[in-house]
Amino acid sequence: MNKGRLEAFSDGVLAIIITIMVLEMKVPHNPNWEALAPLLPVFLSYVLSFIYIGIYWNNHHHMLHSASKVNGNILWANLHLLFWLSLIPFATGWMGENSFAPAATALYGGILLLCSIAYWVLEQTIIQKNGKDSLLAKAIGQDLKGKLSPLLYLTGIALSFWSPWAANGVY
Amino acid sequence: MNKGRLEAFSDGVLAIIITIMVLEMKVPHNPNWEALAPLLPVFLSYVLSFIYIGIYWNNHHHMLHSASKVNGNILWANLHLLFWLSLIPFATGWMGENSFAPAATALYGGILLLCSIAYWVLEQTIIQKNGKDSLLAKAIGQDLKGKLSPLLYLTGIALSFWSPWAANGVY
Amino acid sequence: MNKGRLEAFSDGVLAIIITIMVLEMKVPHNPNWEALAPLLPVFLSYVLSFIYIGIYWNNHHHMLHSASKVNGNILWANLHLLFWLSLIPFATGWMGENSFAPAATALYGGILLLCSIAYWVLEQTIIQKNGKDSLLAKAIGQDLKGKLSPLLYLTGIALSFWSPWAANGVY
Amino acid sequence: MNKGRLEAFSDGVLAIIITIMVLEMKVPHNPNWEALAPLLPVFLSYVLSFIYIGIYWNNHHHMLHSASKVNGNILWANLHLLFWLSLIPFATGWMGENSFAPAATALYGGILLLCSIAYWVLEQTIIQKNGKDSLLAKAIGQDLKGKLSPLLYLTGIALSFWSPWAANGVY
Repeated sequence: MNKGRLEAFSDGVLAIIITIMVLEMKVPHNPNWEALAPLLPVFLSYVLSFIYIGIYWNNHHHMLHSASKVNGNILWANLHLLFWLSLIPFATGWMGENSFAPAATALYGGILLLCSIAYWVLEQTIIQKNGKDSLLAKAIGQDLKGKLSPLLYLTGIALSFWSPWAANGVY
Repeated sequence: MNKGRLEAFSDGVLAIIITIMVLEMKVPHNPNWEALAPLLPVFLSYVLSFIYIGIYWNNHHHMLHSASKVNGNILWANLHLLFWLSLIPFATGWMGENSFAPAATALYGGILLLCSIAYWVLEQTIIQKNGKDSLLAKAIGQDLKGKLSPLLYLTGIALSFWSPWAANGVY
Repeated sequence: MNKGRLEAFSDGVLAIIITIMVLEMKVPHNPNWEALAPLLPVFLSYVLSFIYIGIYWNNHHHMLHSASKVNGNILWANLHLLFWLSLIPFATGWMGENSFAPAATALYGGILLLCSIAYWVLEQTIIQKNGKDSLLAKAIGQDLKGKLSPLLYLTGIALSFWSPWAANGVY
Repeated sequence: MNKGRLEAFSDGVLAIIITIMVLEMKVPHNPNWEALAPLLPVFLSYVLSFIYIGIYWNNHHHMLHSASKVNGNILWANLHLLFWLSLIPFATGWMGENSFAPAATALYGGILLLCSIAYWVLEQTIIQKNGKDSLLAKAIGQDLKGKLSPLLYLTGIALSFWSPWAANGVY
């Protein structure tokens, strides 16, 4: 099995996820600058999510670059990751429309947490298939970051009930 | 004719199908957790359809991997399959919005049935073109599953008039 | 310049065009079979347009397969074709929502006419760049069809004022 | 690192950006020709933006064609460009819906300005990585155009407060 289609499909899904968030920014009917003001939180949450998907795309790019063999488990672990990533636009839209309300910010953090877990699962599946070669050295470095980020997300979810802005700083 | 573009086009269409279902989950205007409750059936039907499209993408990946030659008939059989798959988001949305009502669940099963028939047609077209080599061995294995699943879908459609939840278990 | 990215970009745009037409089929709020009845013309126009985009994708696939060199003119002729194709979902939606009303059917025919002209322009640009080799033999065959179809579309546009159904038969 | 996925991902995002602008052209409920009249500014702004994205795709194609090495900085500079390009559909929709009102036209120019700056940053990042070889010769030619266009956009933004139509001529 080659990894070309896995990359192409993931690129397609990520490209769509990153751009449908723009559709959440509804075109205002009023042609004044003031009409753009209510869109500011939507815009900010779009920027935040764009950076997140960008980070995932970058990491995904590097991880699959170092993988040489692909099997059915990896295909499914990848789809599992794409599933949680595909919920980011929804959570972004809810958070943006409600100006970073506590519940929405917590949901956003929860989905980011599940994304990072799914990413870690994909990482393990690839290591299992490709052995403990040159990849492993990198993998350990990433593991450190990979173990830290769920903790940060949990902190962010907890914070979001107290202060949504602090939570977004943590994300 | 090479199969690269056939795969790229199918990947593009499947990536879009799998992500536009997320757009069906309308962002609620209320920033409370209760606002998410009515979205539960929409979310469940999204998960179900995501898994279905994932299965089709996986099978499509394997089937085309074992095919070496592509002709006009295969291009059209592939488009035929993509057509029925493209109706899944609509059926998913109808089923999700109406909390798995009988008619919507039956329509969903009907479209899945037509997808599986279209998949079988594509399979036969590829076998016809590529001969009865190493592919055939797999094809027979898949035929068994391929012949079972339409029966299951028919059972599901019948059940959906009696109990939509039982029907979804069958799917 | 290689043609790989030209094909990939065209595939992406065509894949999106073919699937956003599904979004025109709004999910009905009523869970009865009767709720689907008003969607019938939308569904029929979707089928018609799906077949059209499928034909264009097939022909595009063959045409670029026989081209070996690509230049700036071909890139722009290709974008010109994609522009007119991108208007098909709009015309389809208008025709579908108004049950094949005369004006909508004529607009649909007009856009198909412009698509076929843009296709012919792209064909000529590719022939000009790639010389009059093996491609030309096919090109002549396609020219016959290419010259016939604008005439058919013009007939269809004329007919659409008299009988939209006859016009759709011609398309 | 190879540049194949960078190109594929950019193609995907650009293909989506170019086609979601069509969704801004809402299907009118009235089947008369008059129903299309209010869509004229939306259509004109669609044409303008389609040409812009087409120019960016063409230039992006040429720039990456001459690049042989890709690193993390280039990936991020590319995402940065895609971010600003992804705001074009929103600005197009606002401008189209308000018949080229001053504020909307100025915003459109501002986003085009930021796109051209992001493009220039990507250009510099690629030159830095790939050295000052055959690429540089082209780069200087492009620099002239690259330095002119921000000036033109600034002129356009200034003009848009006085006459939106003159501003669009400058764009």
